[in-house]
Amino acid sequence: MASGGYGAVSSPVMAGCVYLVGAGPGSVDLLTLRALEVLRSCDVVLHDRLVPPEVVRLAKPTATVTYVGKGTDVSTAKMKVQQDDISSQLVALAKEGKSVCRLKGGDPSIFGRVGEEMEELCAGEVPFEVVPAVTACLAASADARVPLTFRNCATAVRVQTMNPSTIKDERFDWSQFAAPGTTFALYMGLNVVEGVTQKMLCAGVAPGTPMALVDRASLPEMQVVAGTVETLPELVKERSDLPGPALILMGEVVGLRERIAGLRAPVPTLGQPAIASVLAQLPSLSDDELRQLQQEVEETRQQRKRKREELEAS
Amino acid sequence: MASGGYGAVSSPVMAGCVYLVGAGPGSVDLLTLRALEVLRSCDVVLHDRLVPPEVVRLAKPTATVTYVGKGTDVSTAKMKVQQDDISSQLVALAKEGKSVCRLKGGDPSIFGRVGEEMEELCAGEVPFEVVPAVTACLAASADARVPLTFRNCATAVRVQTMNPSTIKDERFDWSQFAAPGTTFALYMGLNVVEGVTQKMLCAGVAPGTPMALVDRASLPEMQVVAGTVETLPELVKERSDLPGPALILMGEVVGLRERIAGLRAPVPTLGQPAIASVLAQLPSLSDDELRQLQQEVEETRQQRKRKREELEAS
Repeated sequence: MASGGYGAVSSPVMAGCVYLVGAGPGSVDLLTLRALEVLRSCDVVLHDRLVPPEVVRLAKPTATVTYVGKGTDVSTAKMKVQQDDISSQLVALAKEGKSVCRLKGGDPSIFGRVGEEMEELCAGEVPFEVVPAVTACLAASADARVPLTFRNCATAVRVQTMNPSTIKDERFDWSQFAAPGTTFALYMGLNVVEGVTQKMLCAGVAPGTPMALVDRASLPEMQVVAGTVETLPELVKERSDLPGPALILMGEVVGLRERIAGLRAPVPTLGQPAIASVLAQLPSLSDDELRQLQQEVEETRQQRKRKREELEAS
Repeated sequence: MASGGYGAVSSPVMAGCVYLVGAGPGSVDLLTLRALEVLRSCDVVLHDRLVPPEVVRLAKPTATVTYVGKGTDVSTAKMKVQQDDISSQLVALAKEGKSVCRLKGGDPSIFGRVGEEMEELCAGEVPFEVVPAVTACLAASADARVPLTFRNCATAVRVQTMNPSTIKDERFDWSQFAAPGTTFALYMGLNVVEGVTQKMLCAGVAPGTPMALVDRASLPEMQVVAGTVETLPELVKERSDLPGPALILMGEVVGLRERIAGLRAPVPTLGQPAIASVLAQLPSLSDDELRQLQQEVEETRQQRKRKREELEAS
């Protein structure tokens, strides 16, 4: 910038430092500038299943890129072991003097286990930076054209996981979903829509409460399935084309979509993300490396699909 | 990108289309690639008070840039008139065939009045795109090193405005802040900490519940004031160096900061944002234009400061 007040810096990342970076909801063009910069600069990148190959390949060509995604058909105990292992790797790599990018889907602080990693880095006295990102509910809101807050209608947003260990807890308060003036954003709910809505109805949530599932928000394949707490399970059940990740939005604002969101107005279609103009100049991972990454991710995606089919069959 | 699958596009924005764009929490380097691209491409930019001049100046040099920020000392009725006027301007500009960037602080969908603007664009049959962004609580979480969710401790996040019209409503449920396993992110709470915490205590919230105020998250001047629901009002009152915008985080996770967030570990200091390397190549607004913008923003900032002093004196 000609006179914007930004001085020159030698490197945008520090040796021996760990960067806990949110990759956002999926689309490359929803990366932040800081995330892109860190990803392009670090010696080592450890990434999750939910980070698409198109993002991972932006690592610098000499970087060591490792896939550390957790499968979905592992037990909570095993997942803890895997997480502990990732945290230990982060510490060890930093102690070797590497700059380390820990790349997570979504925002690191929303169901991203950033706390566990911060804890371990703290214990190891490793310096770190957290780079926030667009979390899934914000992308789902933008793509489904559902304002999360709206005058006289929604003054609060509740972000809640539908993770089995959370919703199976007997103390879990299902009546909270009847709170007025509130929009609910339910993470990890795709496979449990039926059970979750049943519990809500039993707890006094009005059957007509608008509810929508947004699949693959921010990506070209994005889809919205809209209904109510009563009707959504059937609508989702009929669909085999919702691979996830998906987010569920619930509340009065969801019902306003047709009126306020211009669903009948022409919607601009830009085709491919246009940010190509910026990214085109960057050297990136080779096609071989990319194929390898895609394969790894595809494997866990298939695992996930099987898991879902099992759940539906049971 | 050499082979990333992104085709060439003629322009990243469409004539006659409105882009409702989140500028994020403040720092230039937390803009998304899409936000930067839209901002750099649109014919017209209408921006809020909370969007810093460093972001606004990234508009293309030939763009018409207009400040449409709402003062904080205006009535709700007057604010509605101002909002209606902005929405009408968006429609009129699009009908003239302009590409229009409506640039908002934070994420458009979280207290960003994107619903009102979508409603008007829909009525006018103007095509639009919503570009999500890093909302304030995510930046506050990253900078204060408070994971919003954490195992066995926080499985939900509630985003709530402390806007006077919301919290003065007699039906407002203060006991909700005693909900277990939950992190609360309170927006627009800087000037009402004392009253808000009093009401929480009366509604049964434990006095020792950890609570922190994060001022200017994502900016170099960021500060954290940490205490409890009982102690925070006094801690904030003593401080004249908290200009806002500020966000309040509350819940058990806030109390874990010292242990898990490595406050005693060395913290990397990069000085100025390093993203300069990308931005340096972009032509931008002139220094004169920037000064004009800064002056406008400074005026409303001063208004805001006076308002706060009045509130404190009363």
